[in-house]
Amino acid sequence: MSKRAITFLAGSALAASLFAQNTDTLAEQYRDSASRLIDASLADQGGMEKLAYLCDRIGNRLSGSPALEKAVTWAAAQMKADGLTHVVTPRVKVPHWVRGNESASLLEPVNKPLSILGLGGSVATPKRGITAEVVPVSSFEDLEKKGRAGIEGKIVLFNVPFENYNRTVAYRTGGPSRAARLGAVAVLVRSITPMSIQSPHTGSLEYADGFPRVPAAAVTIEDALLIQRLTDAGNSVVAHLEMEAHTLPEADSANVIGEIPGRERPDEVVVIGGHLDSWDVGAGAQDDGSGCITALEAAHIIHALGLTPRRTLRVVFWTNEENGGAGGEAYRTWAGDTVRNHVAAIEMDGGSEKPVGFGLSASGDLQSVLGRVREIGTLLDRIDAGSIQPGGGGADIAPIMVEGVPGLALRTVGTHYFDWHHSRADTTDKVKLEDLRANIAAMAVMAYVLADMPTPLRPITSSTR
Amino acid sequence: MSKRAITFLAGSALAASLFAQNTDTLAEQYRDSASRLIDASLADQGGMEKLAYLCDRIGNRLSGSPALEKAVTWAAAQMKADGLTHVVTPRVKVPHWVRGNESASLLEPVNKPLSILGLGGSVATPKRGITAEVVPVSSFEDLEKKGRAGIEGKIVLFNVPFENYNRTVAYRTGGPSRAARLGAVAVLVRSITPMSIQSPHTGSLEYADGFPRVPAAAVTIEDALLIQRLTDAGNSVVAHLEMEAHTLPEADSANVIGEIPGRERPDEVVVIGGHLDSWDVGAGAQDDGSGCITALEAAHIIHALGLTPRRTLRVVFWTNEENGGAGGEAYRTWAGDTVRNHVAAIEMDGGSEKPVGFGLSASGDLQSVLGRVREIGTLLDRIDAGSIQPGGGGADIAPIMVEGVPGLALRTVGTHYFDWHHSRADTTDKVKLEDLRANIAAMAVMAYVLADMPTPLRPITSSTR
Repeated sequence: MSKRAITFLAGSALAASLFAQNTDTLAEQYRDSASRLIDASLADQGGMEKLAYLCDRIGNRLSGSPALEKAVTWAAAQMKADGLTHVVTPRVKVPHWVRGNESASLLEPVNKPLSILGLGGSVATPKRGITAEVVPVSSFEDLEKKGRAGIEGKIVLFNVPFENYNRTVAYRTGGPSRAARLGAVAVLVRSITPMSIQSPHTGSLEYADGFPRVPAAAVTIEDALLIQRLTDAGNSVVAHLEMEAHTLPEADSANVIGEIPGRERPDEVVVIGGHLDSWDVGAGAQDDGSGCITALEAAHIIHALGLTPRRTLRVVFWTNEENGGAGGEAYRTWAGDTVRNHVAAIEMDGGSEKPVGFGLSASGDLQSVLGRVREIGTLLDRIDAGSIQPGGGGADIAPIMVEGVPGLALRTVGTHYFDWHHSRADTTDKVKLEDLRANIAAMAVMAYVLADMPTPLRPITSSTR
Repeated sequence: MSKRAITFLAGSALAASLFAQNTDTLAEQYRDSASRLIDASLADQGGMEKLAYLCDRIGNRLSGSPALEKAVTWAAAQMKADGLTHVVTPRVKVPHWVRGNESASLLEPVNKPLSILGLGGSVATPKRGITAEVVPVSSFEDLEKKGRAGIEGKIVLFNVPFENYNRTVAYRTGGPSRAARLGAVAVLVRSITPMSIQSPHTGSLEYADGFPRVPAAAVTIEDALLIQRLTDAGNSVVAHLEMEAHTLPEADSANVIGEIPGRERPDEVVVIGGHLDSWDVGAGAQDDGSGCITALEAAHIIHALGLTPRRTLRVVFWTNEENGGAGGEAYRTWAGDTVRNHVAAIEMDGGSEKPVGFGLSASGDLQSVLGRVREIGTLLDRIDAGSIQPGGGGADIAPIMVEGVPGLALRTVGTHYFDWHHSRADTTDKVKLEDLRANIAAMAVMAYVLADMPTPLRPITSSTR
């Protein structure tokens, strides 16, 4: 090849590059930066080190706990150490429920301890506990069919097999009041999980106004099935339940927020994050230490590679996702009018198994938005994490999504998430290094391109912040 | 077809049948009876009802416990109700170890409860417990490399990933004394299981003579990995262990034995069974309620179908398999000289998942014995349970196998057995009805043909009983 030809080619490559943002697809524009982000993510060590510190050293982090306060302080310092700026910890008032000693056992027809976890928000039993016959029901319809005559004075067991989380969790959240309406004195809920090694899974309940608040606890699949078998065999099953549970005045907590300020349009914001709080058992590793750390490490890698995006990339660790949602609401209030400059928000709160892509919700022309995000998705085909499906968001970004901010959820294969969810087994070891790295890669690429692409995912009408 | 032709055909069918035992293969001879046994087994309800009674109502059954005594009484009555005769419960002296209160926690660098189960046979800690640094080791080689300098005064954690049971269990049985030899003050063993939901798995240890007996407990995979991560990160990990554990004088127990007496050669015996004792957590459903009930129900179905075999079919529920093996030894003593008339013994002690066939051990010409049992195996092809592989037996039939009795083990897919094994999750629900039925079918066919086939599996030289 002649020298002149090389000069000519170099010239046209330069020209192509100058006009790239107008003529190339997003995938073409961002192939190189995405490749660098993925390479760095797949070699990342810092993410796992941070997750281990958060989960092993600070431990589980229920709203109102000293550990959550410690996590807020650590997270703010870690964000600064990772190169984020404008790090703030705006205070948030959160519910403060504290588990006490709790135990349960069958008294009839056999004497046997039950493995329980009180549901978050539950009232206590009287000091000497509650002893009553247990009536298993298979659904709300079954409960209603038994009616007051069958339920009054009894402990209701919602023995409902896991179908999917959203469907089955209704028995945990709504079951206690539904049963109390018919006179139940306490409620046991079969743990919301597809499998069990005698492992109870907690979670929040929601008392409905106007009905007695009865104590409620999760039992294991094994114990639920035992009670069902004993009942089906014609036995009257009697259980004893004791729960100390304390609902204290609201506590102080905080969201933790840090940024990579945008190089051209700093007022426009892409939010990425997870929730820092967890249940009070296990270590909150999959739920949702992994979401926080994935967002932080993605931002850290973007920063470390010098890939400052056009817009501001903001990492948010919300507080109190598990039992109140105060963090998500507080973020929306804190953001104020600037919400209109939020281009997109990505929440990761489905654990850190192998990523498959993102779910997306957007008002207006969803197909057009989907099409653009799918272009970005092709940059993740290399790690099989480029599938973009309608339907996404998260509890913490819901308050800004209702204001029109497109919401994304990082999605994984979700093979074992609910085996561990809200149980003592949600521990650091459940997050595999290769999965965490792949999630960081997916988050980094999606966040970077959303924050940098020339035309924002959502039309921004004014800059008020 | 003419009438005469039909008469001729009927005549030859009759003739074929008369000479069947000499000219047909075992598979041809027993195709009809096997088919009836399988049909009945696949529709069986009694097996699951009996298993539920044993595991739900009587519960777990450690040697020396009142529950095991109750199980012996129930089993003898159930054998009679199921049509067995010569039902006896020869007494057996068994070790009597009783778990007391036990707890453990990390004190440094974090304060965290550990989920433990003391190992069966362990000594207690001093009343105020043991507090010491925890040293994780990955193998016996690693332990020896650390030597007395690294081990003395420490709590050793055997953090060995599950490879297979036989290989990994060496750390539970032999670990305590191996560590004590180097001055360890207590031992923690990562539970011998491939998976965990913060679930400890107990089992027996074996103290070696001449070394201090130190307390030993199983920890969960999660806690073992946490201690490993904290240590790898440079922390000194300190734990506190408290165990009340009582080794009492030997207790009375019994094997439970019942028979279908042979119609032609009652002195020749085929033994089938499982062990009635279990660990003191869970319900001993897979290990080994399912083995006992499978053998009993197989015999019950053979009896109910009127298929009295040529030889005696003897059902044995051994006691004390888990922590001593006294039941197996006692059976051999009880059988005395009649052991030479034992044609074969089948033990089922690998749980009741989907059966695949049998493992077989035999002295003498194994290939010839294998060939004959494989002929029987073809009768189980219909339920995909006809694979006969070399290598089989069981802890309870080992004492008669060394006397030359061919030993078989019913084999299953074994997908989840060790997830539940020796844990609180070994409960009735883990045994699926369709799997139990298939196991009963496999056991019934193999036991019936072994007890009925014209030439015994093993040459019987004299009848002394």
